[in-house]
Amino acid sequence: MRPYGVSPGRWPEYLRFPCGGSGRIVPLLIRDKPATMARTARTIQVAARPDGMPKAADFRLAEVDLPDPGPGEVLLRTMWISLDPYMRGLMSESRSYAQMTPLGHPLPCEVVACVLSSNDASLTKGDQVLVYDVWRDRAVRRASDCRKLDPARAPVQAALGVLGMPGRTAYSGLKHIGQPKPGETLVVGAATGAVGSVVGQISRLQGARVIGIAGGEEKCRYAVETLGFDACLDRRVPDLGRRLGDVCRDGIDVYFELTGGDVFSAVMPLLNDFARVPVCGTIASYNSGAPPPGPDRLPGFMRLIQNRRLTLRGFNVDDFSSDIPEFETAMSAWLRDGSVRSREDISRGIESVVSAFIGMLEGRNFGKTLVCLD
Amino acid sequence: MRPYGVSPGRWPEYLRFPCGGSGRIVPLLIRDKPATMARTARTIQVAARPDGMPKAADFRLAEVDLPDPGPGEVLLRTMWISLDPYMRGLMSESRSYAQMTPLGHPLPCEVVACVLSSNDASLTKGDQVLVYDVWRDRAVRRASDCRKLDPARAPVQAALGVLGMPGRTAYSGLKHIGQPKPGETLVVGAATGAVGSVVGQISRLQGARVIGIAGGEEKCRYAVETLGFDACLDRRVPDLGRRLGDVCRDGIDVYFELTGGDVFSAVMPLLNDFARVPVCGTIASYNSGAPPPGPDRLPGFMRLIQNRRLTLRGFNVDDFSSDIPEFETAMSAWLRDGSVRSREDISRGIESVVSAFIGMLEGRNFGKTLVCLD
Repeated sequence: MRPYGVSPGRWPEYLRFPCGGSGRIVPLLIRDKPATMARTARTIQVAARPDGMPKAADFRLAEVDLPDPGPGEVLLRTMWISLDPYMRGLMSESRSYAQMTPLGHPLPCEVVACVLSSNDASLTKGDQVLVYDVWRDRAVRRASDCRKLDPARAPVQAALGVLGMPGRTAYSGLKHIGQPKPGETLVVGAATGAVGSVVGQISRLQGARVIGIAGGEEKCRYAVETLGFDACLDRRVPDLGRRLGDVCRDGIDVYFELTGGDVFSAVMPLLNDFARVPVCGTIASYNSGAPPPGPDRLPGFMRLIQNRRLTLRGFNVDDFSSDIPEFETAMSAWLRDGSVRSREDISRGIESVVSAFIGMLEGRNFGKTLVCLD
Repeated sequence: MRPYGVSPGRWPEYLRFPCGGSGRIVPLLIRDKPATMARTARTIQVAARPDGMPKAADFRLAEVDLPDPGPGEVLLRTMWISLDPYMRGLMSESRSYAQMTPLGHPLPCEVVACVLSSNDASLTKGDQVLVYDVWRDRAVRRASDCRKLDPARAPVQAALGVLGMPGRTAYSGLKHIGQPKPGETLVVGAATGAVGSVVGQISRLQGARVIGIAGGEEKCRYAVETLGFDACLDRRVPDLGRRLGDVCRDGIDVYFELTGGDVFSAVMPLLNDFARVPVCGTIASYNSGAPPPGPDRLPGFMRLIQNRRLTLRGFNVDDFSSDIPEFETAMSAWLRDGSVRSREDISRGIESVVSAFIGMLEGRNFGKTLVCLD
């Protein structure tokens, strides 16, 4: 089992002490709960298929029994739950790369967990691990499903964000599809989110001009002042298309698609010949129930793809898992030297999972959305 | 100047004697017209911007003066005019990779021409050349713009079709974007046209299952019986989507986009994960004046791209001009051994250019559309 994380070194303050949008400091203590509580887990289950934006009533909190850990298994206490927009797709009936979650089951998610007891030689009590689990506060899992984290190398929850799936989504989408070159213009929506913030910062390191689009003035200011974007526009302004044109006088060479909706509509007319569009998410559509467009809807778009020789390519970070070693090396170095910065939006307690999830889908998060169960 | 064409060898009957949809045999004699006629050319000019499908009144036949050929120039008599769907885009005002043709000017096109007189050592009277010219029966051009053809190697007009731009469009679009693999399913519309017919045949040679879509029973029969497609559906049937699903039980891995419109709508729900869509034309949209879709139109499509991890890429054959040598070698061999067959739809006389062009846009051509001025 390869340790996850980064080489030792001095960590910038903002990574040592992850702050939510409210600036709360989250202590990273590991408190072992009494072993007698290990037989049950509290879990958030999907109670109903949402109609549009999920609401609290679409979920329910339940207490479920856990089996005793068998040979090769570990009992885990969840420390951090990662919330990501793709999870919305797992709630609804649609053909997707991901499986739909049955009613009465919790949504899957990456978590950082602490080992309470272990029946496998590879892990011992107190180890902290990364594991793809579900919305619950305890789990029994095979040790081989867990990846051990080294808390001395990076704050463990970074494995859910900038050093994990969202960061790697940005890295691989740019490496294989977006390919920003020096002097080119890249646009990304959800610019202060877990993926968008890394897309912009890596592209700046590649020498591209980076224009963000984000929800609200505070996020725009953060994108420019802290993340180093060349400009950031508030997606809520009514004349987004014109204002985007004003800051993209030479057109757009790469558009990293995370949002869809109005942002994409503003970008589309500005795409240059040979522009690349990594399509990684369309959060604006997740709750609209928009069906694939009918016969009359697409000819103009296909013609645009043809005339401007655009490349649009959908991807999932799992398509590029061979990037993991180089990504971790590169991102560790960027984090250490301050080239890439990250921000976390942290809620506390499993009861807050649903409101944090809905808030993220509504764009109310500011940074990587995490729930701390510690 | 590298001779254009293929290595010597036995030529199949259908290439020696190109037949139009009506089965007419076209003699390949070169008749020199009297030199006194060389000072003028008959040309077809764009007289009005078409509103939707072009009509005869959007063009006019004119006689224009030609200059005397200067040093390094040649006087040419047009033998074959190539008509291709992309020319429709050159008639209208729109941002495109191609320039819009000014009113009063002829549309550009590739032609095969015969040298009537030459002021350059590289060409002599009687030589047959390929040149990007315009809709006219005579021209004065720089010899260096002309590529000499060897009539002993292939029928010269093949340089406008299967051995030229349309054939290479199929080849490069498949090589760089479509990449059909053995056992995969490829779908192409305009299946008996200059590009579609080659797309299907090359893909069959790569081991893919090939499903064509064409206009009418006769074309469908030809695609299966002569071109070797696995199946071909009539695009005019009302339940195209269902019938396409019936013959694509394992979904669609490559869709070579030439048509857009109803064909693409039928294909879209069947696209497999990781499907590739070379976007080379959308003939169904060329006359609709369809603007790029508005904000509400695309989210479902972008989400489909994301979920199925599709690749859509627009291209122009000029993007892959480095493929020319390997394309000519491969296609020559395929033509000689009968692996690839081609069909030409030939009209006669410059007066027929407009009706042949409109017929092609309406899908009434059957094979590569050519006008013979000989």
